[in-house]
Amino acid sequence: MTTTEPTNIATRPHAGIRGPRPTTFIEAPRLSERLGAHVTLAAETFQHTGSFKFRAAYHVATSVPHPSIVTASSGNFGQAIALACRLTGKRCFVVMPETSARVKVDAVRAYGATADLIDTRAMTREARVAELAAEHPEAYVASAYDDLLVIEGNASLGREIARSGLTFDAVVAPVGGGGLSAGLIQGLRDAGSTTPVFAAEPLIANDAARSIREGHIVINEQEPPTLADGARTRSVGRHPWTILQNGLAGIIEVPEREIAEGVRALFTLANLKAEPTGALTTGALLAEPGRLAGQRVCLVVSGGNVDPAIYARILSEAV
Amino acid sequence: MTTTEPTNIATRPHAGIRGPRPTTFIEAPRLSERLGAHVTLAAETFQHTGSFKFRAAYHVATSVPHPSIVTASSGNFGQAIALACRLTGKRCFVVMPETSARVKVDAVRAYGATADLIDTRAMTREARVAELAAEHPEAYVASAYDDLLVIEGNASLGREIARSGLTFDAVVAPVGGGGLSAGLIQGLRDAGSTTPVFAAEPLIANDAARSIREGHIVINEQEPPTLADGARTRSVGRHPWTILQNGLAGIIEVPEREIAEGVRALFTLANLKAEPTGALTTGALLAEPGRLAGQRVCLVVSGGNVDPAIYARILSEAV
Repeated sequence: MTTTEPTNIATRPHAGIRGPRPTTFIEAPRLSERLGAHVTLAAETFQHTGSFKFRAAYHVATSVPHPSIVTASSGNFGQAIALACRLTGKRCFVVMPETSARVKVDAVRAYGATADLIDTRAMTREARVAELAAEHPEAYVASAYDDLLVIEGNASLGREIARSGLTFDAVVAPVGGGGLSAGLIQGLRDAGSTTPVFAAEPLIANDAARSIREGHIVINEQEPPTLADGARTRSVGRHPWTILQNGLAGIIEVPEREIAEGVRALFTLANLKAEPTGALTTGALLAEPGRLAGQRVCLVVSGGNVDPAIYARILSEAV
Repeated sequence: MTTTEPTNIATRPHAGIRGPRPTTFIEAPRLSERLGAHVTLAAETFQHTGSFKFRAAYHVATSVPHPSIVTASSGNFGQAIALACRLTGKRCFVVMPETSARVKVDAVRAYGATADLIDTRAMTREARVAELAAEHPEAYVASAYDDLLVIEGNASLGREIARSGLTFDAVVAPVGGGGLSAGLIQGLRDAGSTTPVFAAEPLIANDAARSIREGHIVINEQEPPTLADGARTRSVGRHPWTILQNGLAGIIEVPEREIAEGVRALFTLANLKAEPTGALTTGALLAEPGRLAGQRVCLVVSGGNVDPAIYARILSEAV
């Protein structure tokens, strides 16, 4: 009935964080049966701030000497950089459209960062970032994906996969700006692994696949309205491109229907809550079941942050 | 682009299972903030068959010499014993009400067990188990909770918590039949830990709490209609009772509203999909926030198997 040494650290619950959390490997026999491959999930849904983005954000925040960081993000990178700045004692400004989901704005603010809300009809995010950078010349301007530090930060996931003691014939990761897939390739190769890396991209946002086919970076005319909001980037970044161009084993283009079915399959067959972008890799095996059939595949589930109403709607949809 | 040694084990995805999977510890800073305690989740949602029940089932199946096992379960124990029998080459009969969710019947059958469907208006489960045991005198009759082997099997979770390297002021686990909480106490004490164990029980199914208060096993008149279907047992088992009676530090009775809110809090603040019974421990801290305030608490999330429609409805409810 009695307890010892109450610690009262609940009031500073992030105080103990000393870097990214190792990924969570989950073997998923029932999902394997459904997908026709021997699947292991590398879940970044339990990473700090709920997505792999914390790997890059923490690496940026601990690598640059600047006392403050400016970035634009309406998604996972914003939360990740906000927490990373809080842990490293830096000021942080996150430019977000004023139409961003309240829960995302609140999360950025909860980590002590300034959510800089703009009317995107009146001003682009890039322009506002430039303004803030001019106002704060001491600040580092961070990109969510087009930054060598971001790729280096994400490389830690590749090294963890290479050193996991598990053997894979292929690793599949979502591609949006390319920071994750490029980092994975770099990390696997750093650790001496030659395992091929495939990217999974929404079919309606397939600029990376078109870029590979055409041999140069192709840019979407506008932000594609895919359910996988982490892959709504208009193009891959220049830094990731130098790695992806020759480093990817292939890109699997995933229709929206298979992205949603991927969310449901992870829920039903692996008990894993994934955001739609995180389910792209499962969707890839649903969309092209022959591609990696019978192989030992590591599916990277990049994050788990999804609005409950959107998630409930996806679960409730007929297949 | 090329891959080596395709393994084709997707057709036998359970072939590599050699015992229970270690629990998944998840530190949850945002959930900690919400609950006012420093919370670490011990998630059994990624355990084989999606709940802690596999620990007991595997221990039973590998301990008894009988070539077949008979049990009654419409829930997680049925799936767990079915897989455990498949892995150990035993025949398996699971008595289930014919009104059981199709998905649960299918899961039992998918593991190669016989789902023995009965009309519970015409015959009790106990009577049908007795019939089957008479028909199959070579069979071991397994209880989902009132069996020393079940308690021993679940004790492995207590040993894992004790040997995790993490320090806790309290462990909280759901209580239904009592097999999990009794096993946890036994496992923690086996490993030399004196950490107090609290049980979380649905308020409308509070036979264990009433039993502790009255000093003897109290039996619910009928199966209580709690959302936490894993805790719908009419009473704790006699074997668990001998451990729980003096071994529990306390029982927290959780109203239905806090059970549902626990499911939502795990979803929103920890990216964890839990079944309502698995969310009882989170609900306990929501229901009695003062009870373990500021302490280092291990919340056992006992399982993740929940029908998508029920889960979507819980997510969509206003708080």
